[in-house]
Order: sequence, then structure tokens, then C-alpha cells
Amino acid sequence: MSKIITLTTDFGLEDEYVGVMKGVILARAPQSTIVDLSHAINRQNIRQAALLIKSAYRFFPEKTIHLVVVDPGVGSDRRFILLQAEEHIFLGPDNGVLGLLLESEHFRIAYEVQCEQYYLKPVSSTFHGRDILAPVAAHLAAGLDPASVGPVIRRQSLKKITFAEAVIDRGNDTITGEVTGSDHFGNLQTNIKASSLNNLYGNKISRIIVSVREETIVGVQTAYAHRAQGEILAIISSRGVLEIAVNLGNAEKFLGADIGDKVTVYMPGT
Amino acid sequence: MSKIITLTTDFGLEDEYVGVMKGVILARAPQSTIVDLSHAINRQNIRQAALLIKSAYRFFPEKTIHLVVVDPGVGSDRRFILLQAEEHIFLGPDNGVLGLLLESEHFRIAYEVQCEQYYLKPVSSTFHGRDILAPVAAHLAAGLDPASVGPVIRRQSLKKITFAEAVIDRGNDTITGEVTGSDHFGNLQTNIKASSLNNLYGNKISRIIVSVREETIVGVQTAYAHRAQGEILAIISSRGVLEIAVNLGNAEKFLGADIGDKVTVYMPGT
Amino acid sequence: MSKIITLTTDFGLEDEYVGVMKGVILARAPQSTIVDLSHAINRQNIRQAALLIKSAYRFFPEKTIHLVVVDPGVGSDRRFILLQAEEHIFLGPDNGVLGLLLESEHFRIAYEVQCEQYYLKPVSSTFHGRDILAPVAAHLAAGLDPASVGPVIRRQSLKKITFAEAVIDRGNDTITGEVTGSDHFGNLQTNIKASSLNNLYGNKISRIIVSVREETIVGVQTAYAHRAQGEILAIISSRGVLEIAVNLGNAEKFLGADIGDKVTVYMPGT
Repeated sequence: MSKIITLTTDFGLEDEYVGVMKGVILARAPQSTIVDLSHAINRQNIRQAALLIKSAYRFFPEKTIHLVVVDPGVGSDRRFILLQAEEHIFLGPDNGVLGLLLESEHFRIAYEVQCEQYYLKPVSSTFHGRDILAPVAAHLAAGLDPASVGPVIRRQSLKKITFAEAVIDRGNDTITGEVTGSDHFGNLQTNIKASSLNNLYGNKISRIIVSVREETIVGVQTAYAHRAQGEILAIISSRGVLEIAVNLGNAEKFLGADIGDKVTVYMPGT
Repeated sequence: MSKIITLTTDFGLEDEYVGVMKGVILARAPQSTIVDLSHAINRQNIRQAALLIKSAYRFFPEKTIHLVVVDPGVGSDRRFILLQAEEHIFLGPDNGVLGLLLESEHFRIAYEVQCEQYYLKPVSSTFHGRDILAPVAAHLAAGLDPASVGPVIRRQSLKKITFAEAVIDRGNDTITGEVTGSDHFGNLQTNIKASSLNNLYGNKISRIIVSVREETIVGVQTAYAHRAQGEILAIISSRGVLEIAVNLGNAEKFLGADIGDKVTVYMPGT
Repeated sequence: MSKIITLTTDFGLEDEYVGVMKGVILARAPQSTIVDLSHAINRQNIRQAALLIKSAYRFFPEKTIHLVVVDPGVGSDRRFILLQAEEHIFLGPDNGVLGLLLESEHFRIAYEVQCEQYYLKPVSSTFHGRDILAPVAAHLAAGLDPASVGPVIRRQSLKKITFAEAVIDRGNDTITGEVTGSDHFGNLQTNIKASSLNNLYGNKISRIIVSVREETIVGVQTAYAHRAQGEILAIISSRGVLEIAVNLGNAEKFLGADIGDKVTVYMPGT
């Protein structure tokens, strides 16, 4: 059966790099379907890639193979790993890009990639995405058993990645979190989960106050358009977290916001 | 048979948004072929998307499904529609993005999308392209009858979109139109149709004068290279309208042109 | 059998141009797999496209059809050619974009494209990629014999493209070359081949000096990470040439480097 391979890299689209990875894959697994997740990860930004792949993978069918190539250590002695979470397969360097899957309840098993018989020869110093990961992904798509790429690695020995978690204070009905990134529209993502908001505030969620930088926002909307053009608002993002947005505008620019900016949620009068 | 699904959005390519829509589609219609038309529509620019999809769709085979997701009203009570023009299927919000197909002679029928059994659950507040349109498109690609997505909507009740039409003055042999946009090369598109030029001027087209901002251009070329490097010229664009270009240059920057700038065509001596 | 068609253009991704080429191809060869190599060639930059396609094609399977549409002469009397190198097929204007394949030892044969029965009608003045090359590529993918697109052209009559070659001075153990371009990471490519370095310096390569602009670099690394963050280094690029990079940085900006900048390699003490 046809397999899907997704690609997440910091390669940009101006060079031939993404295209040749696809060539290497299609030469070995002509029936595979390749999907670009993003090639606009900021250069060497492992944290951004880790968040993106965790947010995206579950929308693909089971057995999908996800390649994540943000690899500043290319050519050095960092390992490549194959990681399984739920029924998905992930391939990437052991540098934290797969770290959020590692810590997930859905983690199953990880292997060190050591199947040199599949690599392009000679392996270059600068492009292991093409020379190692692409051919291994292709062989997996063509039926190679994940267990045969190399030895099992203990979960504890894999590179972790740490993001601040929002702090929930049930006594004072407050949640303190932070901005984790922004998207193409300038919408700000936070580390405050929708489920945390629902648990703490229940049906009073329409009255909560969200405070970020100098702004105070009342309630959580169910549509950007429920606020006037140019007005700031809070909403639940498509990633399932609290999002700060400006209707028909750009919250990142409006607020001058940065990753790490504090976001506080509380009930009025507390 | 394999179906083609095209995507036109204002999502950009830096986030996972386009990729996860493809994941949702491929999970439900693994045999479909997905083609990106553009994800660089300016944010919330319904007019730009409306022009693009009208210009592009007819180059695809019949039965192609075209998703257009420029949707500033996401989460509000705006409807989603399925529209048929010629033998093509279009899906998008009822906000004007499909308005030029609605007014076309090729319009066939429109339905309101109400087939909640196919939506992702829960439907998010911010990403109906992923939660509603992608799965519906996938089911259509997999064989769902367009008539079964929901009730027929009367054409008159659908959201229109209005573009100024060029004014043809047969008495004075003049056409007055305007700039409608520019492309990657800085070539300016206008609302003056090639067919209007041919009807009014026939084989005298090589002598017409095109006036835009401070510039006066003589004749219509059949190749950019028929003018010297850096010289302004008129030509018939690949969209079938009068285009203002600069050979090996950028007409938009050269003229400081904007959408809505007046373009006048006349015969010399009139 | 399913055929692969690659696309290399200067069209950018904001307009419908790339998408409609895919529509034209899929309407005629629904089983073909289309891969984007790059649509970010600088406008009308034939040299950049020539380097890219030469570097990329061999990672695709034999029989792949490569379309290269950087075509400032569109609409003029420049020819379109089909060129075969190794077992790959290339289609593009006869303006030099395929010039590096022409001069390669792998060149086999070239034909002038004159099979008007396959073109879209009417052929536009501005978009022959859509109207001529895309349908011809599709028919080739669907089984058309390359020899039937038109008459054979003598190799000598095709448009050449000339790049400076690095000069190897065996007497003085020096190589003098130049910067040929930079990539998304700001890594500088040169015209000094890895094979030239190996031939001249053998296992003394770790001691060579690379001089570019005001900088002097010692040795050739096998990983960016073998130098400290922000430090300049030399490495063999994925294109098989000497590359100047900055670990976790941007060598192009660091050096203020331009295409054509002189790069000298020598042994210390000479």
C-alpha cells in the first residue's frame, strides 16, 4: 500500500535541497506520497520544529513516516533515531527535534539508525537528510521493518527538550503561562492548554481575563469576527491552546510580542 | 479514478497549516492528487483569491475539486458552499472568494455544505479549512455525490464580488480600465480583455496607445524581448488581459503602480 | 509506469503559474508525479538555474523529465529544446539553462521541440511553460518517444553557458577559484571541486589554507560543528565542491561575499 512521507526542515525552498530529497525517496519508493509540512523552520531552530511536528502528525494516517531535518550537528557524532509514537514513525537527529514525542504518553520505542547499506555513498559532510534519512525513509515506505534500522535505544538516553509549562493555581483561579510562538497571521500561540482553561473555569470561560504585555482581554471568543476589526482577542487555536489574535490584524506586531512573554489568566475580582 | 484537489489559501508556507490539510485529505482519500495553486494570497484578501481561482481552474481536468480557503469569518455564521462551474467543483466560504464563478456563464449550481458527519470533531474555532473543507473535499474525491453535501442554495442569495469592468467607447475608439494586480515579475494585470482590444482595434492593434500613470506605450508586443532591456511595453498576459510590463524589469516598481490605477487605450490622433 | 517530472522556474509561488503548469500536466498524464526543484530562481537568472539543474538531476531516477523554465525570451524566436543526458530528459529554452548538461560527458542528443499538435491553443505571448513545455512533458511522461518532438539539433549549434573554472597550479600547490553562489543558510559555494583538492593535496587536506576576502581558513572540516559557533570554516558541500560556511551562522553576510569573489587554496609555507 502507498505510504505517506512528510518533510519538516529548515532548508527553505530556494535551493535544490528539498527537491533532491524527494528524488532520492522516489527513486527507492516510487509509490510513496510526499507531503511538505514546512521548510521554513528558522535555521537550526530545534524548538520550533519540535513544536510543529508534535502539532501536525496526528492529522496524517497511521503508518505515516515523518522526516524532521533540522540538523546543525550534521557530520558530527550525533545519532539519527527512528522513533515510534502511536502508529506513526519519526526519523531525525537525536538533538531534541523529536523530543516532545519522546516525552509523550504515545511514545512506543526508539531505534538508532545504523543501516548503512541503505545510505547514499559517499555520505556527504553537510547533507545527511539526503544521504541517510531520505533513503532510509524510502526503504521504510517500501516495507522495511522499523526494527531493522538498528538497535533499540533506551528512552532515557535520548535527547530531551524542555518547554516551560503553564502554572495552574487552583486556589487563586489563575493560570500563568507564556507565548510559545506566532504564525503567518501574527497570531500568538501560548502554552496554556484549552483543557486547562475548561477544567479551571468551566462555563465561566466567557468572563475570564487574559493579560499579556500591557493588554487586558475579556473572555474567549469562538470566532475572530466576534470582535471588531483591529481589536485584540483571545481564542482557542487550532493547536488546542490559548491564542492571542487581532481580528483582521497581527497580534505579534500589535503587541510587539516575543516568545517567552508572560500570559496570565484570571477571574475578574480575584 | 484518481481525483485532483487544488488548494488556494492565505496560509503561507511557514506553519503546518497547509500540510495538515493534506494529511486530513490523504487520510480519507489516499488516491487523491493534491496541487498547490497558491498559499501566498495576501492575508484575508478575498478579491485576490477570487481572481486567481477564476484564472487557474480551467487548466485542470474536469471533476477537479478546488478548495479556496481565505476565510476571515472563520467560526462566525458565514456559510460554506459547494459550487459547480463547468465540470469543476469549488469549495469555500460564502464570502465572495467564489464570486467570479457565481457570476460566470459557466455557473451550474451551488449547495450549502452541511454534512457534519464528515467534519473533524471537535470543529475548532480558527481552522475550518482543516476541520470542514478538507474532509468534505476528501469525501468528494472518494466518490461522494456533490448534491449530498447539503441543500441547494439559490444563486441570488450567494455573496457576490464586484470588480470594475473596463469601459469601451466605440465612438471614440477608447477603452478605459484599471490595474487589477501584479505578479512575481512586477507585471501589471488589467481588467482590459484581449478580446475587447481585438474587437475594437482589429489589425490596428500594433498602433494603439496605452496610457498608464505618466507613461505612454505604443502598440502591443508579442514578446517581452521585442523591447529593449528596461523598456516599458504592453502585451497580452497569460490570463488573457492587457498587461503592462518592463522587459527584464519590474513594471510595478518602474511605475510605482497600484491596484486601481487608471489604464487608457486609444488610437493615436483621436 | 509512473513518470516523474521536475520543475525548475523563476516563477515564485505567489501566482497561479506553477499550479496551472501542474494542471496542464495532470490533465494529460494523470499518473505522473510532479516534484518542485525550485521556483525561487532569481528572475531571469539563467546561470543560477543551469547550476541548480546540473547539481540536482542525478538524484532522480532514470527517465525523469526535467522542465527548466527560466525564459526571458518567451514569445521571441528562441527555440525550445529536448536534451538527453545519461538517461534523463530535459526540456527548456535554448538560452543556456541546459548549457551545463550540453557540455557534460553525459550528453547524448538534443532535439528542437516542434510538435505543435501538443501545444495549448492559442499559445500565449508570455507563458510558454504552460502552453508548450508542460503539455510536451506530459506527453513524454505518457509515453511519447523523445525523438518524435522534432528534428535533431547539432550539439555545436546549441546555446552554451560559460563558468570560470578553477585554476590548478601543481608547481605551487595552489588552486585559484571563485564563489559561484550561496544557499539558504548563507553557505558559499565555489567552483573548486572536491576531487581537485583530493588530487592535489591528498591526506594533507587538513592542513591547507583557504583564503577568501580578508579571511584565512585552516583545513577542511567534516562537520560544521567541528568549529565553534560563529567561526568560519571550509567544508565539502553537498554539491561536491569547496564550501565556505560559518557554524550556526551565515558566511555570505559574515564575509560580505559576492558571486565572483576570488577563493585561493594553498599549503602553508608556500
